[in-house]
Amino acid sequence: MVMVLRQENDGSETVACAAVATRDPATPAWQPRVLPPVRTHGGLLLIDALRVRHSTREYDSRALPVRLLSELLWAAFGINRSATGDRTAPCWRHVMVIDVYVAMADGVWVYAPEQHELLPYLAMDIRAVTGLQECVGEAPVELIYVAHGDRMHDVAAEDRRLFASVDTAFIGENVYLFCASEGLGTVFRGAFDRKKLAEALKLDDKQFVTFVQTVGRQKARTGPGSCIGRIS
Amino acid sequence: MVMVLRQENDGSETVACAAVATRDPATPAWQPRVLPPVRTHGGLLLIDALRVRHSTREYDSRALPVRLLSELLWAAFGINRSATGDRTAPCWRHVMVIDVYVAMADGVWVYAPEQHELLPYLAMDIRAVTGLQECVGEAPVELIYVAHGDRMHDVAAEDRRLFASVDTAFIGENVYLFCASEGLGTVFRGAFDRKKLAEALKLDDKQFVTFVQTVGRQKARTGPGSCIGRIS
Repeated sequence: MVMVLRQENDGSETVACAAVATRDPATPAWQPRVLPPVRTHGGLLLIDALRVRHSTREYDSRALPVRLLSELLWAAFGINRSATGDRTAPCWRHVMVIDVYVAMADGVWVYAPEQHELLPYLAMDIRAVTGLQECVGEAPVELIYVAHGDRMHDVAAEDRRLFASVDTAFIGENVYLFCASEGLGTVFRGAFDRKKLAEALKLDDKQFVTFVQTVGRQKARTGPGSCIGRIS
Repeated sequence: MVMVLRQENDGSETVACAAVATRDPATPAWQPRVLPPVRTHGGLLLIDALRVRHSTREYDSRALPVRLLSELLWAAFGINRSATGDRTAPCWRHVMVIDVYVAMADGVWVYAPEQHELLPYLAMDIRAVTGLQECVGEAPVELIYVAHGDRMHDVAAEDRRLFASVDTAFIGENVYLFCASEGLGTVFRGAFDRKKLAEALKLDDKQFVTFVQTVGRQKARTGPGSCIGRIS
């Protein structure tokens, strides 16, 4: 079993994510997938990325090259200050409650920012369960933002969804801008069957999905369709 | 009285913001402040802005040049698609419920993205009311994110704070990255006296502040102080 320990600000360590062996004993041979280093140049100026940021509603199924996947995850919620482990996106109350799960054709992986790698989590394609719209499942990547209630010790139970959702939106905007910079499409989504997705992900009762974000290449438009709508 | 009408997706128009004459009859001569156009170049690459994004906790009081203020507001929640009025940040359910109020030494202004200008709102320096920490009020700009409940027709009352907070965080991350790109400091804050700030802003019972975001130049460090803490 692969366990990833995270050093919290108060000095304590918490389990950030547990690899597939704890969840899916059928695939013990699955190995962590090391991601290539993030480039030190390339892409658009921030101001130009802001200019072309938008939501994409139709995707083709081409997989992302591993370089793009690597930079997407770092941009989303990677470590940008190695001394402290602080991230590209802020965390409300400075507690990192969100893990980024990556659902692709070959299964679900958990992004481990400390090693900048993907930990195997579930050897199953669950992309179709990440949304209610017909076309969900076509894009190569669904980022599933999973909140860990057990890291929110000092947050009242009724505020946990709010806190975790706000932290997710910071990450989501990083993803929007990275996709804008790289010519990829993305859409941040809140419409999914929470129970079904939690079951598919084998979440425990302290974990919950805040949002899902689709990433892929925009499909050439053939009609006015808008299967994943309502966010611009 | 200056009224700004916003075209909603369903074709209806709503009042996006009403200028100071409706709020503060003592200063009828206050005029909208036209902001200079946003540059088409300059600043950092997105990937470099992500690399240096962080929260700043100590500010000096120097005002921002109007060019930076202009680009800050456009980056935050400006229009990046003139045909549709869509913005640099997404809106959940495609309803723009957030207005950006700008508290500075000379008063409070409302950012009007359609004209890319600041509408006068309140001729009073309320920066010190925007937070509970001792040093609040030092930085030249406090962005106050005001949600308009009356624009959330189809959102259950108990979900309105959540929806509006998520939309605010998208904007907040744009501000973080813009500040990173321009060498400015910023911090996104949720700790303030909600009642006191709503009163200072003369909000009606359908409006509420989701968050506040401080923007300014980082003060030269003289000690370990961290007067605005808990977000990284």
